[in-house]
Amino acid sequence: MWNSDMESTDFMMLALKAAKESAAEGEVPVGAVIVRHGEVVAVGRNRRETVKDALSHAEIEAIRTACAVLGGWRLWECEMYVTLEPCPMCAGAILNARIRKLTFGAYDPKNGAVESVIHMFDYPFTHKPLYEGGVRESECAAVLTDFFRELRKNK
Amino acid sequence: MWNSDMESTDFMMLALKAAKESAAEGEVPVGAVIVRHGEVVAVGRNRRETVKDALSHAEIEAIRTACAVLGGWRLWECEMYVTLEPCPMCAGAILNARIRKLTFGAYDPKNGAVESVIHMFDYPFTHKPLYEGGVRESECAAVLTDFFRELRKNK
Repeated sequence: MWNSDMESTDFMMLALKAAKESAAEGEVPVGAVIVRHGEVVAVGRNRRETVKDALSHAEIEAIRTACAVLGGWRLWECEMYVTLEPCPMCAGAILNARIRKLTFGAYDPKNGAVESVIHMFDYPFTHKPLYEGGVRESECAAVLTDFFRELRKNK
Repeated sequence: MWNSDMESTDFMMLALKAAKESAAEGEVPVGAVIVRHGEVVAVGRNRRETVKDALSHAEIEAIRTACAVLGGWRLWECEMYVTLEPCPMCAGAILNARIRKLTFGAYDPKNGAVESVIHMFDYPFTHKPLYEGGVRESECAAVLTDFFRELRKNK
């Protein structure tokens, strides 16, 4: 179903689909997809409230699944697509998992650790992923603003 | 067994014990302990090779356990003791879990994200933990240097 004819924006659409599933569960909607040689190996979505675990961000769920699927902790042939700029924990997890390239949608001025608050990947850590922000930015941002608007309305 | 008469260095000794268990399993020896109101609620050790998961650092294992034990993702009444300065992922996880104070043993000049490579907790993120490094530093460093010396000898 997900084959090598898929393009960057298609993978982001899949991440957006995962984000919307988070929203439907009352979670801050963020979705992530991990791709290897043009094939999807893992999809993750934010489930922090559902599983009551500070670590259950979309990127972490996706990395955990990808490690399980591929049978190792080094994902250096993998790319990640995520709807929101990663926080420090997730940017650090991307470093530790040796992910080759990160593509993200919306910027996070409060917690973004790639371009907004810290430029994590520009420091001399062991690994240095490529990255690109702002892909399908408006759609990725809209899913978040819609969620918070609904949340305020229902309060 | 672990009660409120325990002191900072006792908790670090417990983290060191967990680190030594990692070493015995062929893992880079790092141990972490989470304490709430003077009582131990979680112990974690590095198990990255064993579980083949990029995320299985000692701090992550301890946070996951603490969230499960306490039934929520906000650990703001908790302190963490860890034998090695946290990497970016773990420093970020400490922020996300709202841990009140971090105490670490050895410094990590290559990957340390609290004082060595990045001063993560000095950035304007939502949460700002207290921190102290260098507690039982020589013992915490020795467990690592011993491990790598053995590793080279057996190659």
